[in-house]
Amino acid sequence: MSNPEPILREGEAPLRDAYARSGVDIDAGNAAVARYRDVTAGWRHPSQLAALGGFSGLFALPGDDARALVASADGVGTKVLIASRLRRYDGVGRDLVNHCVNDILVVNAKPLFFLDYFATGKLDPEVAAAVVAGVQAACRAHDAALLGGETAEMPGLYQGGDFDVAGTIVGIVDRAAVPDPAEVAPGDAIVGLPAVGLHTNGYSLARALIPESEWLEPFPAYGEGRTYADALLAEHPSYYAAVRAIQAVAHVKVMAHITGGGLLDNVPRTLPAGCKAVFEQKRWEIPALQRELVARGGLALEERYRTLNMGLGFTLIVALGEAQKAIAAVPGARVVGWVEERADGEPQVVVHPERTA
Amino acid sequence: MSNPEPILREGEAPLRDAYARSGVDIDAGNAAVARYRDVTAGWRHPSQLAALGGFSGLFALPGDDARALVASADGVGTKVLIASRLRRYDGVGRDLVNHCVNDILVVNAKPLFFLDYFATGKLDPEVAAAVVAGVQAACRAHDAALLGGETAEMPGLYQGGDFDVAGTIVGIVDRAAVPDPAEVAPGDAIVGLPAVGLHTNGYSLARALIPESEWLEPFPAYGEGRTYADALLAEHPSYYAAVRAIQAVAHVKVMAHITGGGLLDNVPRTLPAGCKAVFEQKRWEIPALQRELVARGGLALEERYRTLNMGLGFTLIVALGEAQKAIAAVPGARVVGWVEERADGEPQVVVHPERTA
Repeated sequence: MSNPEPILREGEAPLRDAYARSGVDIDAGNAAVARYRDVTAGWRHPSQLAALGGFSGLFALPGDDARALVASADGVGTKVLIASRLRRYDGVGRDLVNHCVNDILVVNAKPLFFLDYFATGKLDPEVAAAVVAGVQAACRAHDAALLGGETAEMPGLYQGGDFDVAGTIVGIVDRAAVPDPAEVAPGDAIVGLPAVGLHTNGYSLARALIPESEWLEPFPAYGEGRTYADALLAEHPSYYAAVRAIQAVAHVKVMAHITGGGLLDNVPRTLPAGCKAVFEQKRWEIPALQRELVARGGLALEERYRTLNMGLGFTLIVALGEAQKAIAAVPGARVVGWVEERADGEPQVVVHPERTA
Repeated sequence: MSNPEPILREGEAPLRDAYARSGVDIDAGNAAVARYRDVTAGWRHPSQLAALGGFSGLFALPGDDARALVASADGVGTKVLIASRLRRYDGVGRDLVNHCVNDILVVNAKPLFFLDYFATGKLDPEVAAAVVAGVQAACRAHDAALLGGETAEMPGLYQGGDFDVAGTIVGIVDRAAVPDPAEVAPGDAIVGLPAVGLHTNGYSLARALIPESEWLEPFPAYGEGRTYADALLAEHPSYYAAVRAIQAVAHVKVMAHITGGGLLDNVPRTLPAGCKAVFEQKRWEIPALQRELVARGGLALEERYRTLNMGLGFTLIVALGEAQKAIAAVPGARVVGWVEERADGEPQVVVHPERTA
């Protein structure tokens, strides 16, 4: 791993045309986040704690010095449009909960409860119930309560049976158990857990590259008898059990949930400034759907790794000596890269040449 | 108050044509709620507590027998469409938080933190920031943290700059302080706190009756120099300070937040089965916008009191002997009705003849 040839060099122009053309403007998203900082800068609640990586928010539990509540809100992006057009509803409920579980897992939180928001133009109780059944099933799988929710019929905002779904998870953590990026050091190993499909990111791009007319056509690269729809609606897995299994045998220093922004934006969120993450792509499989999107869209390297998960859904950093125990604890877990020393101005993530795509 | 002539009789056919014609199907909403019960009936988390009135959910705080977390999720309905067309954004942020604060106030909870979800077809960072500024301001007013949120750009689901906004509040309560409907008895007084505008309910009806072309026209009944837009975008108030002021001088038995379903559906949610709430409409003012909608839509009595708040935003039940102290504590608070004994089969809410409409 000495002197890897980085595929992404500092100063390289951002390559994000395809995603922008599909209607999602990453610059606007970053600008919105910057403006949120402006409008919220004047006041911060004293119980609000530093939020490791920003995957979730932490709030000191009143009257309890040892514990914090952890919360995260999310949606599933325009995966909802594919689900509604194909009338496959319960998966997005599970996607939503699992996404939120993974977000608070980054700080080691245990889920307590979840609330959902379902909004549509014309309310079909069976559709709403199917989505909520998925939410409930994923809550139960994590021993978390589905504590409430809101169902809104909003003609004029949503077209016909189109719907959106969002939710908020609340968990709890011992403050001493929140990971500390200061533990990360050059030489540590990065363990990757496999993604299953696109999770909940990149769907506007995917819909632009794989038009609705093809969704029910065969997609043999994804599997015998499978369609593009099957690949597109694959459920966002929860990494809760896998992470707990690894933590039972190895000390996990930090974690990252590979959400919007991909490996490039998410891994640095829990890295110290003096370290970079170096991935060797030959160490894991790029899934069929991601390969298909890269080929159809002619996606440049940066865009692949910023818009799509490219096959890794969650990463954990452990001491090199613990890496073998860690990957042995979870089927599919692999060592996918290393932590190296980072000089000022160097990128925080380097992806070493790919085998395919 | 003996033998009031109820304007709503048991067995009377529901009168909800205008709201249904505007695209909101209350039957579908009730059917969805019934189906949610079906799909969630198989399992309930042991820490989930009885949710007084269903305005919010209660979850026993792990390792703490005395306290519960309280949470509620909500949106602001198609008020967002009026806000986006008129480019007045920050009010809906305050609407959203205040609505949620009121929902958990029914069980006496103190707000801890809030998370928002903002979704749009084409992300304008200034619009998103304006909405979030309203959210932040309302959080700060309640000493609650804006702990997180999600901003989603979803082309194809939302048209252009249309947006939706939803959020979740989490609060905390001493379990002994959760109101108990068993305390309510015939002869108790009902204290009403004035609504300001439509809050966040009835907007699809309002948009059907007051078309967009009239929004910027003068609406003198609402005030000198005011427009329909001013009335339609009036901010949903928080009743937190008012309720605390009343609780400082009087024992409040139960409360209700007058949200979707109006007085008719919300007041019974915290009443014991053997009691009915009898309102005397002459005791409070019906606001100008509600009068206008009733007149334009020819709204039948039941529809008025189920679709609109009709001027009361929050109700509290106190012993008759405490009513004067209670209303003296808050400007605008009035005694608006009484609790009476209810026989089997009688309605749980009676609205006694109106003065105007």
